[in-house]
Amino acid sequence: MTREQVYEVDVEFGDCDPARIVFFPNFLRWIDAASRHFFHACGLPPWHESERSHGIIGTPVVDLKVRFRAPASYGDHLRIRTCISAWGRTSFTMKHLVQRGDTVLVEAEEVRVFARREEAAVSAGEPPQTKLKAVPVPPEWRVLCA
Amino acid sequence: MTREQVYEVDVEFGDCDPARIVFFPNFLRWIDAASRHFFHACGLPPWHESERSHGIIGTPVVDLKVRFRAPASYGDHLRIRTCISAWGRTSFTMKHLVQRGDTVLVEAEEVRVFARREEAAVSAGEPPQTKLKAVPVPPEWRVLCA
Amino acid sequence: MTREQVYEVDVEFGDCDPARIVFFPNFLRWIDAASRHFFHACGLPPWHESERSHGIIGTPVVDLKVRFRAPASYGDHLRIRTCISAWGRTSFTMKHLVQRGDTVLVEAEEVRVFARREEAAVSAGEPPQTKLKAVPVPPEWRVLCA
Amino acid sequence: MTREQVYEVDVEFGDCDPARIVFFPNFLRWIDAASRHFFHACGLPPWHESERSHGIIGTPVVDLKVRFRAPASYGDHLRIRTCISAWGRTSFTMKHLVQRGDTVLVEAEEVRVFARREEAAVSAGEPPQTKLKAVPVPPEWRVLCA
Repeated sequence: MTREQVYEVDVEFGDCDPARIVFFPNFLRWIDAASRHFFHACGLPPWHESERSHGIIGTPVVDLKVRFRAPASYGDHLRIRTCISAWGRTSFTMKHLVQRGDTVLVEAEEVRVFARREEAAVSAGEPPQTKLKAVPVPPEWRVLCA
Repeated sequence: MTREQVYEVDVEFGDCDPARIVFFPNFLRWIDAASRHFFHACGLPPWHESERSHGIIGTPVVDLKVRFRAPASYGDHLRIRTCISAWGRTSFTMKHLVQRGDTVLVEAEEVRVFARREEAAVSAGEPPQTKLKAVPVPPEWRVLCA
Repeated sequence: MTREQVYEVDVEFGDCDPARIVFFPNFLRWIDAASRHFFHACGLPPWHESERSHGIIGTPVVDLKVRFRAPASYGDHLRIRTCISAWGRTSFTMKHLVQRGDTVLVEAEEVRVFARREEAAVSAGEPPQTKLKAVPVPPEWRVLCA
Repeated sequence: MTREQVYEVDVEFGDCDPARIVFFPNFLRWIDAASRHFFHACGLPPWHESERSHGIIGTPVVDLKVRFRAPASYGDHLRIRTCISAWGRTSFTMKHLVQRGDTVLVEAEEVRVFARREEAAVSAGEPPQTKLKAVPVPPEWRVLCA
């Protein structure tokens, strides 16, 4: 059995576009929040704390597949059901179902990694080219998410 | 040979998250703009006009695959190279490469449809459940995009 | 006595910027949602319905004053307390207090109008220059908001 | 004479709401970008660099007044004209005019401060209550902006 967490969203007027439906990048914004809430509900520390303890700044998405089955609009109440379907050494696969009532509107599958920052050497005045490096999943965190 | 259009983006401070990299849904926002610019550059009418002429309100995404290869941050100048890689009866596949200089940061592949609105009957006081219906690609538009 | 409604917000990672605080335009996004929720709680119809019944498409902001007293960050739970402090013929003044616990983080005062659309004549191929026109506050709505 | 910088924006479909006009918080997003570009054009270092050199993480807005005179929609090309109209000890007043052609759509006046972070002591597991402290305007920066 896989642990599931639910994150709830009220769709607002400003989340919708001139076609009067949710502008699709907002679904990804909510899915990202659902991902963070999953870890929070499992008891993982917030990223500003894990940066100090493990050097881990978050779980950037490296691969994303989304199927948009039906639109949503403002006034809709959505539930995002989130679980981890697979673990790799440095990565994991997260699945999200965005539902309005029993209707699945959006299905998403993400591969994310636990990452730390690698500051590349840069010349003065240049923006730092932020590099992220995947690190092994902390085993105690994997236990918390089971 | 497939037609390619380029859409340019300056990454702003407010596009970035506490990890100091672009919050990934913003890449999808820019890719959506690149998609609209592609059609605009090909000579298609804007959606508020096509709604009158063809009933078509836009090209909602039905399927999305994204590979995030490297992060971007504010101060970066990005180029999004967009082309249509395949046509179906009501759908088409669009590819986007997001580059900083010669480095590809993000690869995206979208399946989109040309859609019109179907207003479902609703009870008074209920929000209208917007339904979208895919319509055949107007052949004159497909010619414009070649 | 003035009616007050409360709208609640959980601040997300993606709402924050590289300074690790809420990117301030997001406060305005939430305040706009609080404004719509105020009218919804008072029993006003949603804008897609009022467009049919009264020609009214919403309540655009014409004047905005905001005082940012303290920042918020992700993990914060915010409450937005909203009331209407004054009514004009076509406009009204709305006040919002954004609080974390008892601490007021943001104070906002908006003048909004009830507006309908005036489509200006445009040449073919030109984007329609959307014009909005303020209309008198429907008296039955003012009663609902008291 | 006051130095003026211009920042340009193409309004996108996804920047607009179901009323088919720019969702107003997006104007603030662009104004924030215009503010950062002003300093960049004047030769100030980017905030990630000034954090190291001066402890300054940016210029948070403490007070904001905006007058929305006319709406914009997608396809519009906007120019934001930005200048500093007054300097205080730790603060400055910035004015922005958002124009489409010669028509002023939005007028904004912001009071911003140069700020550094003050990390308040927090209990384990608590989110850090980010506090910002205004610092005197570095005189060499004020000269650069003249």
